[in-house]
Amino acid sequence: MKCSICGRQYSKPVQRCECGEPVEFEVFKGEPYIGKSIWERFWDFWPVEPVMKLSLGEGDTPLVKSKLGKEFGVKLHLKNETVNPTWSFKDRGTFLAVSYALKAGYKAVGTVSTGNMAASVAAYASRFDLDAVILVSENAGDEKLKAVSVYGGDVIRVRGDYGRLYFESLKLGERLRIYFINSDNPFRVEGYKGIAFEIAEEITPDYVLVPTSSGGLFRGIAKGFIELKESGLIDELPMLVAVQVGGCSPICRAFHDGKERIERFQNPGTIAKAIANPYPPSGNAVLKLLGKFGWECVTVSDSEIIEAQRELAGEGLFVQPASATGIAALKKLVDSESIREGSKVVSILTGSGLKTLKSAPEGEVEDCPLETLDNCLKSR
Amino acid sequence: MKCSICGRQYSKPVQRCECGEPVEFEVFKGEPYIGKSIWERFWDFWPVEPVMKLSLGEGDTPLVKSKLGKEFGVKLHLKNETVNPTWSFKDRGTFLAVSYALKAGYKAVGTVSTGNMAASVAAYASRFDLDAVILVSENAGDEKLKAVSVYGGDVIRVRGDYGRLYFESLKLGERLRIYFINSDNPFRVEGYKGIAFEIAEEITPDYVLVPTSSGGLFRGIAKGFIELKESGLIDELPMLVAVQVGGCSPICRAFHDGKERIERFQNPGTIAKAIANPYPPSGNAVLKLLGKFGWECVTVSDSEIIEAQRELAGEGLFVQPASATGIAALKKLVDSESIREGSKVVSILTGSGLKTLKSAPEGEVEDCPLETLDNCLKSR
Repeated sequence: MKCSICGRQYSKPVQRCECGEPVEFEVFKGEPYIGKSIWERFWDFWPVEPVMKLSLGEGDTPLVKSKLGKEFGVKLHLKNETVNPTWSFKDRGTFLAVSYALKAGYKAVGTVSTGNMAASVAAYASRFDLDAVILVSENAGDEKLKAVSVYGGDVIRVRGDYGRLYFESLKLGERLRIYFINSDNPFRVEGYKGIAFEIAEEITPDYVLVPTSSGGLFRGIAKGFIELKESGLIDELPMLVAVQVGGCSPICRAFHDGKERIERFQNPGTIAKAIANPYPPSGNAVLKLLGKFGWECVTVSDSEIIEAQRELAGEGLFVQPASATGIAALKKLVDSESIREGSKVVSILTGSGLKTLKSAPEGEVEDCPLETLDNCLKSR
Repeated sequence: MKCSICGRQYSKPVQRCECGEPVEFEVFKGEPYIGKSIWERFWDFWPVEPVMKLSLGEGDTPLVKSKLGKEFGVKLHLKNETVNPTWSFKDRGTFLAVSYALKAGYKAVGTVSTGNMAASVAAYASRFDLDAVILVSENAGDEKLKAVSVYGGDVIRVRGDYGRLYFESLKLGERLRIYFINSDNPFRVEGYKGIAFEIAEEITPDYVLVPTSSGGLFRGIAKGFIELKESGLIDELPMLVAVQVGGCSPICRAFHDGKERIERFQNPGTIAKAIANPYPPSGNAVLKLLGKFGWECVTVSDSEIIEAQRELAGEGLFVQPASATGIAALKKLVDSESIREGSKVVSILTGSGLKTLKSAPEGEVEDCPLETLDNCLKSR
């Protein structure tokens, strides 16, 4: 492994570099095989052997042709990650990281999250017969926690600085032999490569729009495409676009200011809670990738997100606000003519709208007595 | 098409026989092809050409090896239908039925449902650019309707006898050219055959446990296996088990009383709302199948369901109460020695637990200050 920023090498899997930045695995090269699951087809590319008999069928999600492409003058595809076992992309990374934890002899895994990742780690810990320690922030709602605690792990509401908790958990985990699978854990990031592999099996995209918070998902998809290119399986890298919300965009801000380091985003606020990390642990690593490959960072507003969420629902895909940011960004890229007409574009739909039902756009509900239903239907 | 009960033949697709019972398509015979989707691989077996370019990737769900099998002395597999585009098995039937509606020139589709089916029809109507009329009961909760109205159809709360609404909607639909895709619509039933086909692609089950309400899902899975046998693709039919809840079990009651006709179940009550139809429109058709093939009907209690729901969550699969009935039934079948040791069993997980979050088993949540997190973790 090596540090994504300073390049320092490590011979054993560590969580982060001594310089504080995320470490990453070497660039894997290989060839594709025939197999039913993404894990089997890209067997050469994982840093640990996936425990296939405990797979829940994560990954291998549909790439859906979008009707919205026409409106934007591009060929738009939606990578629907909401149909994973716990209904978000997190399961890909969790499965791989828990496979490592099991092989490394850990009896417990943990994570710091209140949303998709918490549910995912709790679910896979149960599946792998490992204890789970889920550290959530003190203002996590009861309803949200139900979708986590149902899997049976230890859910602990931690009073204190939630940002510090990320780093504290890694330290404590090392001491207490709990393997923490946080947002940009190196194995988790490797799991996300599958998204790139699956896309490349179907099309050669010009642009891939990635909702970006901690940076783990972006780094994983980027590494996936890089490995495909290094392996000679694709000729060119697509243009990756990191999408953030204006109310919390530490990566885009640093990128547009030409800085090499992100700064903590003050007073973050957005409906897209799943991507509202004010100080993303892989922020600098994402910045480096954006610069190196000439990629883009785009911010969108809450109202643009709500509009995009509605449009996606109009295609039959109900996603959480964070997942709609890609479509909102596409609109901006088209309006500013930064995207070529006829381009092949993929937007990643990260998680199910059922997870954020309270904030969902409210539709109208009429009332009608059965006796006069005839008239109610006619007057629609 | 012919009536499932009286056998009367119809040359055009109708919704129900004049005798009031459900009609069904002939038994299709064919051979499997190579293809990515279940629709392509079993192309010979659909009564209408699926509109593939509008598919949302429904079907092709994982068959997950269950750890619970060991405990029960059987080889248990879980067919995880919660990872469909609207997170329930309904999408398979909806996609096929909406494909028909589009080809038949309908401008609007409808359904009578407050749950999974409502969301599914609303989603696919949007996807197919058709109007949607979703008729829900007057006591449908606002929160539940949000997951339906978000897709943009006309949601109408109908005051009056909800049972009558099923039949009224078919009549009104015919008059007003709205194609109603209710629970046991003939195309919907055909769509569910894919579950049988996919299972048979992976294993040859001895038992298949099917949560049963209207009877549409049971009939679809049954017809799927029958067609596989008639096509020479499997040698023997599995034993199908219709599972109902004690609080609403009109089919099991009639079956165990040796009757040929179901009776309306008085004062139904259960937490498994998704399978609480007191007068299932395909009840008699299911009864006939159970009798003809020597299949089984098993009832389970609410407390057994909650226990099974917890056990499934312990495997990483969070399902709605109705979906846990199969596991609850398996326990009973094992206890009464009605199932051979070492049998290959498949239980159908029909829909996501996120849909019924309010009724989900509550897990414990601890509190801990960040400063003493060390101690909190040690004392777990």
